[in-house]
Amino acid sequence: MRNIKLIIEYDGTNYYGWQKQPNYTSVQGEIEKAIEIITREKIKLNGAGRTDKGVHAKGQVASFCTNSSIPSDKFKFALNSVLPRDIAIKESSDMKQEFHARYNAIGKQYKYVVYNNRIRSALYKNYSYHIPYELDINKIIKAKSYFLGTHDFTSFSSTQTTVKNKIRTIHNIDINKINDIIEMNVRGNGFLYNMVRIIVGTLIEVGSNRINIDELKGIMELKNRCNAGHTAPPQGLYLEKVFYKD
Amino acid sequence: MRNIKLIIEYDGTNYYGWQKQPNYTSVQGEIEKAIEIITREKIKLNGAGRTDKGVHAKGQVASFCTNSSIPSDKFKFALNSVLPRDIAIKESSDMKQEFHARYNAIGKQYKYVVYNNRIRSALYKNYSYHIPYELDINKIIKAKSYFLGTHDFTSFSSTQTTVKNKIRTIHNIDINKINDIIEMNVRGNGFLYNMVRIIVGTLIEVGSNRINIDELKGIMELKNRCNAGHTAPPQGLYLEKVFYKD
Repeated sequence: MRNIKLIIEYDGTNYYGWQKQPNYTSVQGEIEKAIEIITREKIKLNGAGRTDKGVHAKGQVASFCTNSSIPSDKFKFALNSVLPRDIAIKESSDMKQEFHARYNAIGKQYKYVVYNNRIRSALYKNYSYHIPYELDINKIIKAKSYFLGTHDFTSFSSTQTTVKNKIRTIHNIDINKINDIIEMNVRGNGFLYNMVRIIVGTLIEVGSNRINIDELKGIMELKNRCNAGHTAPPQGLYLEKVFYKD
Repeated sequence: MRNIKLIIEYDGTNYYGWQKQPNYTSVQGEIEKAIEIITREKIKLNGAGRTDKGVHAKGQVASFCTNSSIPSDKFKFALNSVLPRDIAIKESSDMKQEFHARYNAIGKQYKYVVYNNRIRSALYKNYSYHIPYELDINKIIKAKSYFLGTHDFTSFSSTQTTVKNKIRTIHNIDINKINDIIEMNVRGNGFLYNMVRIIVGTLIEVGSNRINIDELKGIMELKNRCNAGHTAPPQGLYLEKVFYKD
């Protein structure tokens, strides 16, 4: 039995998220179907991150086991020829039996795109979060330091999560503004449900003077979702990269 | 009677181009409908450029006459509230009676986006031209000089055009490559039908060694569409800006 790793790009606009669900079109479901067409095997695809409806990916990682004899680097071409045009396999490679895209991940990088202009954008409507009021980018950059390092991120995760351990480490937050576009790149060892989107929503409220920078420490310590900012919408979010050892 | 100028952004993916046509959804048609809702007048919208099906715009310009008393800068908000989400009015302003978006234009700037990677992109599929083979960017940059200045661009325009005078001036071609994305910005005093797309198609054939740089002068002089490169597809093209005097 072989173990194949895929690196996947997708436009999440027309999918009910990564995860397969009955009666809904999902990215996982589409790729499993494509693998079945190519290998004539029913397989289960394990994704590194379960992105929500509308969330995009440039570097989602998934793995599956197969008896197929297709050379690993040929898998991507075979799959791309049958996949919908808004899903693309960027790389395919053979891994050791032990490899699992989710359990072996040691970190992830997400990008969040804000479109900051009084007028909404026609071209970026499915690819950014439109903020029509002024944002103080210097305050946002200053505020990011409160999220860096190891914290209990209970205040910055959805109450729907069932995960017990809410301690995570954020290694880096990189914020750039070019004209109307603010890009926030967040890299960490793992993320709770909605964590990036709530951090972004909170940073936006700092940038619009609804939350003071010196409140952030207290919000983190209270471990209560109610005190943090809103959840920024899915279409601005991109799973950029998943990190593994070696 | 007032004369209103609009600056318009649109995602051309779901439109049969700018120009109104019976039974097809067009950008012009949608904006005329929106103006009718706002002003309760039937108007005719004059666009600066008739972009094709699938072509995008960040700075299309159009003008129309109205008896409405809506303050000119409020027009954009009123129109954006009724327009489809893939069309946005970025600016609206009062102009002199003589102003006409098309006849008064003294130049235009287009951007063309190439996605150069062996694997197709899921996220840029409607926003770029996928070239899966290697391109020599230095050759492309060298070749651009053959298009600069004033020429008879018959060889680089669609044979469908009915325009007699095919002499145009290209002021500037700016080419940048960042990772997999090649952006070509072309600025000139006017463009024939498909001219930017044929120039881009020709540059791509230079970059892939199908056309030699020293053939370009001869291709221009022959004034025959057959000898130039292919017409690059519409989804990579963006009407960026329309220039006017003063």
